[in-house]
Amino acid sequence: MNLLLLDDADFIGADRAILRDRRLTHLHEVHRADAGDSLRVGRVGGLMGQGRILRLENQEAELQVCFDQPPPPKLPLTLLLALPRPKMLKRVLQTVATLGVPRLILLNSYRVEKSFWQTPFLEPTAIREQLILGLEQARDTVLPDVIIEKRFKPFVEDRLPALAAGTLGLVGHPGDYPTCPRGLPLNQPVTLAIGPEGGWIPYEVDKLAEAGLQPVQLGERIMRVETAVTALLARLF
Amino acid sequence: MNLLLLDDADFIGADRAILRDRRLTHLHEVHRADAGDSLRVGRVGGLMGQGRILRLENQEAELQVCFDQPPPPKLPLTLLLALPRPKMLKRVLQTVATLGVPRLILLNSYRVEKSFWQTPFLEPTAIREQLILGLEQARDTVLPDVIIEKRFKPFVEDRLPALAAGTLGLVGHPGDYPTCPRGLPLNQPVTLAIGPEGGWIPYEVDKLAEAGLQPVQLGERIMRVETAVTALLARLF
Repeated sequence: MNLLLLDDADFIGADRAILRDRRLTHLHEVHRADAGDSLRVGRVGGLMGQGRILRLENQEAELQVCFDQPPPPKLPLTLLLALPRPKMLKRVLQTVATLGVPRLILLNSYRVEKSFWQTPFLEPTAIREQLILGLEQARDTVLPDVIIEKRFKPFVEDRLPALAAGTLGLVGHPGDYPTCPRGLPLNQPVTLAIGPEGGWIPYEVDKLAEAGLQPVQLGERIMRVETAVTALLARLF
Repeated sequence: MNLLLLDDADFIGADRAILRDRRLTHLHEVHRADAGDSLRVGRVGGLMGQGRILRLENQEAELQVCFDQPPPPKLPLTLLLALPRPKMLKRVLQTVATLGVPRLILLNSYRVEKSFWQTPFLEPTAIREQLILGLEQARDTVLPDVIIEKRFKPFVEDRLPALAAGTLGLVGHPGDYPTCPRGLPLNQPVTLAIGPEGGWIPYEVDKLAEAGLQPVQLGERIMRVETAVTALLARLF
């Protein structure tokens, strides 16, 4: 936790907040903080700044906070991901928030097992929990939008062309394709789709291409979804 | 498992192998394979090729194998990592193997908790297990060398200068440093050091610089170790 993120419900005054949950435990056990200590704080969806611990007890902590810094900019990106398996989904949500992706679309694909759609990790509160962990890691305050699209064809035919219009549209896909471009000009908007374990099927690659997303590859090595997300974004931006 | 990796002990003849462990379970449960099916195989430290399942039973499988392809090339890299916490270590070992790092040095640092050196995940068999998972993911056969250096100063003063000589020496470190270079010329050898959670302390950054490694950064966002490894390698190579 490189940033203590505070939510509206934590505030008891304009510059006072009370902590009682996981974050209190973290102050005690990881930061080994004391009353009087200062630490970096942020307000979910708002500014970042400094907090001073006024009281630190077993059950709660009281902080005086001052916000004066904007969060870091987001990437100019819409990321489409075939829904990963639940354990990977948790990590990918954190990674996506850490890397500064502003919009994530979780999409169906032929190789996504139907059972993956039943996971409790897709509940809005569970998604938010992982995103917050990723923001705390990166030192950012702004939650990415996460959109769930359970049907591939209607989304890719009816909505993706408008989303991808005016952006560089890419599909990360192993195979005999051009290599992924490097170091795009600042603020070049991108729409990037990354497939499931086992990859998109050819029909899906064709449909994504019709919607304006061209396949690019990163070499012979097959990466896990989380690794592919990080590698593609590090190369593009 | 995108590649079934076979070890000397699995062979009962020049082109015959018997499987009984985790890999057999994987054939049954994930591949849902049948006798007669073909799949990609590799020999640890050797070539890759095709295997055909001759028999597939509950207790064992017999494969006929043919090796005719070299594994993908490794990166021209020595990676130094401050020893991560045990859970992260497992994942980092997989990632390092997947990305094609040929040599990994696990190093002490002021911010590495002493208890991390006690983890059973540092046993040679445990390290090998994670590396194999990473190779199976990537489709590679060659295990990275993993070297353990429990003392920062003697390693950095006495051995690192010779290791880093003739390479581009870099330390991934957040701060007011040049940005990490992109897309190095093919076969440019690199020595890259990545710090612990919380980063190297200034003394360590100075000692690494004396040994020939200059700090570079990736922007304001603080990444987990695994994410930083992937992002730095994707940007450099």
